[in-house]
Amino acid sequence: MILALDAMGGDHGPSEICKAALLACEEFSDLELLLVGSESEIKPLLEKAPSSSAKRLSIVHTDERIDMDEHPTLAIRKKRNSSMRLSMEMVRSGEASGCVSAGNTGAIVAGGVLVVGRISGIDRPAMGVALPTLNKYTFLLDVGANVRNKPYHLYQFAHMGNIYSKRILGVAEPQVALLSNGSEEIKGDEVISGAKTLIKESSLNFSGYVEGDDIPYSRADVVVCDGFSGNVVLKFAEGLMTAVASMLKEEMGQRILPKVGMVFMLPMMKDLIARFHYEKHGGTPLLGVNGAVIKAHGRSKAPAIVSALRVARNFVKQNGVELIREELG
Amino acid sequence: MILALDAMGGDHGPSEICKAALLACEEFSDLELLLVGSESEIKPLLEKAPSSSAKRLSIVHTDERIDMDEHPTLAIRKKRNSSMRLSMEMVRSGEASGCVSAGNTGAIVAGGVLVVGRISGIDRPAMGVALPTLNKYTFLLDVGANVRNKPYHLYQFAHMGNIYSKRILGVAEPQVALLSNGSEEIKGDEVISGAKTLIKESSLNFSGYVEGDDIPYSRADVVVCDGFSGNVVLKFAEGLMTAVASMLKEEMGQRILPKVGMVFMLPMMKDLIARFHYEKHGGTPLLGVNGAVIKAHGRSKAPAIVSALRVARNFVKQNGVELIREELG
Repeated sequence: MILALDAMGGDHGPSEICKAALLACEEFSDLELLLVGSESEIKPLLEKAPSSSAKRLSIVHTDERIDMDEHPTLAIRKKRNSSMRLSMEMVRSGEASGCVSAGNTGAIVAGGVLVVGRISGIDRPAMGVALPTLNKYTFLLDVGANVRNKPYHLYQFAHMGNIYSKRILGVAEPQVALLSNGSEEIKGDEVISGAKTLIKESSLNFSGYVEGDDIPYSRADVVVCDGFSGNVVLKFAEGLMTAVASMLKEEMGQRILPKVGMVFMLPMMKDLIARFHYEKHGGTPLLGVNGAVIKAHGRSKAPAIVSALRVARNFVKQNGVELIREELG
Repeated sequence: MILALDAMGGDHGPSEICKAALLACEEFSDLELLLVGSESEIKPLLEKAPSSSAKRLSIVHTDERIDMDEHPTLAIRKKRNSSMRLSMEMVRSGEASGCVSAGNTGAIVAGGVLVVGRISGIDRPAMGVALPTLNKYTFLLDVGANVRNKPYHLYQFAHMGNIYSKRILGVAEPQVALLSNGSEEIKGDEVISGAKTLIKESSLNFSGYVEGDDIPYSRADVVVCDGFSGNVVLKFAEGLMTAVASMLKEEMGQRILPKVGMVFMLPMMKDLIARFHYEKHGGTPLLGVNGAVIKAHGRSKAPAIVSALRVARNFVKQNGVELIREELG
């Protein structure tokens, strides 16, 4: 399987991305990667590759890149040779089965629509995230491809989320729910209650409204919301867990007894923090476009990029795009 | 100071509320409480009161109550003798300086508007919460008095939040920010960008947009959003911290070494969990109405009700209502 990897995207640039490329090639013997970006920067970073990986790594050279603070649509329209746009062009042409970028989120969404193209019948693509929760994962979408949405968009998100949960995350009968400000019938605004009416009449296993605290308690497998709410929840979750971890570290530094205690607890605490460290679970699929387009967090280090490549590979292997096209196209 | 306390609201009923009344009277020697609800249920619960408290506790008897699942506006309109409505009537008439209820949130908001009345000039009241964050508290509003809002509402919330942060939470120069899906100028929807324009031109110390992760990192003292977003964030935070705590407990039960470690770490962990245990920080003021109306969480046990009474007392002492009236009335 050939995947395009935007080597210039993200806060850490080519070094972490090339490190990830090497790790991913070791993990998956069927994986070929097209690293898109500055050859002079990428080449030295691939020198350490064992021969078994080296032959599966190629560089697609370009000097142009999209920066994190550029206007998304303008950048994707004008920078036709940017590493991100070229990665997406290869998905459109079929040279690559999918692509991964840790670059400008808005530009990834714009490129998904303008370069890769929407699946016919899909009004708006959505980004989804598999959030680690109490016992499993909850797939939350949209987390930022949109700002506000119409009921029909949320209806389509519900279907796409259902497919992702079932086929990619392996949930047998996903419970699909709408995020609202209360579980009672009278809650929500017109958009949410409109979406409820639409989803209720569909074939989905719909459980109505859930509230914010139902997410960490895994009370639904798929939680649907507009891009604004999803983005706020996801970033808040990331921030809260990082803040708690850093407080814990600081407190530990000041006290002796807890330090002794931590020696005993380290493995467990590490598990727990890793589980809820949302940033580390890299790989946010842009659902509803004609190809596997996976966004990695801008702050991604190599392991998160590897995780995004894993998500891309899985999505391609499970024919994610075709499944969405069959159900909603 | 006389406060009315709805003895029938909340999931635990009069027992926890009367326990809280006793604790609060011990804590504040200037406090008199009017317990509103079923005399036959309340009276036995107050029997243990020391005489110094007993003389400051009176019962205002009524058999009617508003249940958690009732339609808020209908309930407050029809149940004119409900414990919640009577508590609010006493605020309106001046018999009480403020009131606390752990009952139906929607009914508290409806009662705030219909019984206590809005401050003239205030379009919509807002509920705010002082969220514990990395180094201090961030005052988030609205967290559920509204669903969606207009720019002018958010503008008024910003001013009310500023007053609360400065005068009640003691922040010298509160940084006020708008919650958005990104910090760049182009982010947000029309409501949020409309509010930005309004707030920018005001006298507030405005720092523009913040994202979800800026809340736990205390990057603003006051974070303004519509009632839907605030409600989702607050409940998600409550759920996440409870879920993490319960996972920690479960893991501890299964392993021996961490249990040994925990003995050393207990005080620190307790501090940390208590700090981020949002539910325990009881007391959500309904800002913008003609009186101190404080909501406690439905799940509140006695300490959370005491905390809500503390918030009410503080709000009255600092002339919260007058300050809002002066600035926005």
